[in-house]
Amino acid sequence: MAQKHPPVTLKQVAETAQVSRAAASFALSGKPGVSEATRQRVLQIASELGYSPNQTAQNLRSSRTGIIAVYLPENVSTLSYYMEATFGIVDEAELSNLTVTLVPHTSTNAPIARLNADGLLILDPAREDAIVDRLLALGLPVVTGEALPDPNQSAAGQVISDHRRTTCEILDHFHSAGAHFPAIITPVERMAWSMSIEDSYIDWCQRHNVTPRIEHTSMDELTETTKFSTRKLLEDGSTDAILALTDGSALAVAAQASEHGRHIGKDLLIAAAVDSPALSYVDPGVTAVDLNPRDFGRRCMNLLVRILDSKRAPTDEPLTEYAPTAVIYRASTGAGNS
Amino acid sequence: MAQKHPPVTLKQVAETAQVSRAAASFALSGKPGVSEATRQRVLQIASELGYSPNQTAQNLRSSRTGIIAVYLPENVSTLSYYMEATFGIVDEAELSNLTVTLVPHTSTNAPIARLNADGLLILDPAREDAIVDRLLALGLPVVTGEALPDPNQSAAGQVISDHRRTTCEILDHFHSAGAHFPAIITPVERMAWSMSIEDSYIDWCQRHNVTPRIEHTSMDELTETTKFSTRKLLEDGSTDAILALTDGSALAVAAQASEHGRHIGKDLLIAAAVDSPALSYVDPGVTAVDLNPRDFGRRCMNLLVRILDSKRAPTDEPLTEYAPTAVIYRASTGAGNS
Repeated sequence: MAQKHPPVTLKQVAETAQVSRAAASFALSGKPGVSEATRQRVLQIASELGYSPNQTAQNLRSSRTGIIAVYLPENVSTLSYYMEATFGIVDEAELSNLTVTLVPHTSTNAPIARLNADGLLILDPAREDAIVDRLLALGLPVVTGEALPDPNQSAAGQVISDHRRTTCEILDHFHSAGAHFPAIITPVERMAWSMSIEDSYIDWCQRHNVTPRIEHTSMDELTETTKFSTRKLLEDGSTDAILALTDGSALAVAAQASEHGRHIGKDLLIAAAVDSPALSYVDPGVTAVDLNPRDFGRRCMNLLVRILDSKRAPTDEPLTEYAPTAVIYRASTGAGNS
Repeated sequence: MAQKHPPVTLKQVAETAQVSRAAASFALSGKPGVSEATRQRVLQIASELGYSPNQTAQNLRSSRTGIIAVYLPENVSTLSYYMEATFGIVDEAELSNLTVTLVPHTSTNAPIARLNADGLLILDPAREDAIVDRLLALGLPVVTGEALPDPNQSAAGQVISDHRRTTCEILDHFHSAGAHFPAIITPVERMAWSMSIEDSYIDWCQRHNVTPRIEHTSMDELTETTKFSTRKLLEDGSTDAILALTDGSALAVAAQASEHGRHIGKDLLIAAAVDSPALSYVDPGVTAVDLNPRDFGRRCMNLLVRILDSKRAPTDEPLTEYAPTAVIYRASTGAGNS
């Protein structure tokens, strides 16, 4: 099992095929100058030996690096979402023979200038994130997962989940289950997806003549800030449903509500705007929006590949694609079981 | 914000500095042949313009790609662990100016032969994983996160957590809290870390004259298989503590135990061998082993860099480093609070 052998070289292919290195190279690259019989023999031998041409050299020649850089936010409370989305990105990249590299968080200075990539994917850009500004300034083709939150920024493309629709669906579900005073707990960090959920929550409240109750949480100290916000909502007394924007926050709401003697799924309904495996494992399971992160990641990479291939001129209007989402109902909102 | 400009070229640096391209190149690479005054002027201008030499070309010259490939297992029930470990790998890679790429899962055939990297990190290799075999056969320097489970396989280095120590610590803690018949729920997938936990569990049982109770779960269908195993353990009647090997599995144990009318932290103690944010958010919080995944990832990358720099000959004995771990006590094992 532990056989270690260096990569096969062009020289080995040439020697085995008993042709010159130049002839082997011509045969492999499909250039004229060798007979068809030689070409077939060289291809056959290269395949048998497992020869792969030096990718770095090939990429340099085609003036493409073959690399897509991916930037994930640093303080992520929905780690499983990003892991799944990253797997989706890598799966889709492979179809185009692209390699995915991850942009590091640590340095806020020089190294970004060296980013050696054909294009860039930024997942969930946050408004306060200086690295996002600096990445955009590199001039590479960029696709964002969810929109850029700053109207002065622009990307070549964006993949967006319809958070407005799922937010209304959850609030309507609360309502029809008898919970008429829903509150939301949203990150202080400003991202397009959380801002659109807040907006649709406020719209919904206006339509239903309910005063909006918005409390905050911070990605840095998710448990403590969520528990504090939950206490504030529950001490008020009227709150009968809480939509927590992240999966981790929803779990912290549930823990705090139990300490307050509230019964989740009965006298307090809870939902999360992002699903994660944990929300189905806990008891009661927590209703949440399945954002299909693996599929979402694939769509991001696919859109970037299309943009790279199209060589379209940068315009102010990004190409926009919508990703499918679905509310998964569980016992935390009164569903039977699961 | 949305300024897009192409990267600065050597030509632009040379023109701005009013020297030939060759002179600019010599100055930037520190070669003799230009005056110190010219060299200083060129460096100054290159810095002002934000010039970065073409990394692909430079790497090719130094016969290094500057790329480290990372392989993560496909069916991961502990997604936040791998996400954190990956962030740690990327952070540490940056210190050595290395780029991290992720090996895709989808294709089980040709593309691995093309892997263009100086070295390879494999996290939690599983015994049945054909991709691991094929990656090892590439002949690249490899560091594994946790050991290779197959004694016929070998890597240049490995970073290992002391699962034996933490397993004994948890079982002793169960015991001193009055739970004398602990069971474990372990993945059917064979990995070195889970195998070492099973071994130390069996050792502990022998020392305490207890019959081992080992049930299984599958990463593919974690919730259902864990719930099934939990039911089997609870119907038996004597089981008073369960160590679940993954964080997701521990949550599923807790949900199933509640349905069975057991009170977690009181008449049933629960712990997980891998911590995750969710385990601290739920009520009661679940005791778990903090494997310090971000630090673990950094250690993996650091060890690989040392191996690459040392140019040591491949030997059968991998360089081994131990990563620090700690049991985090929460209410699921009777701890006061949190």
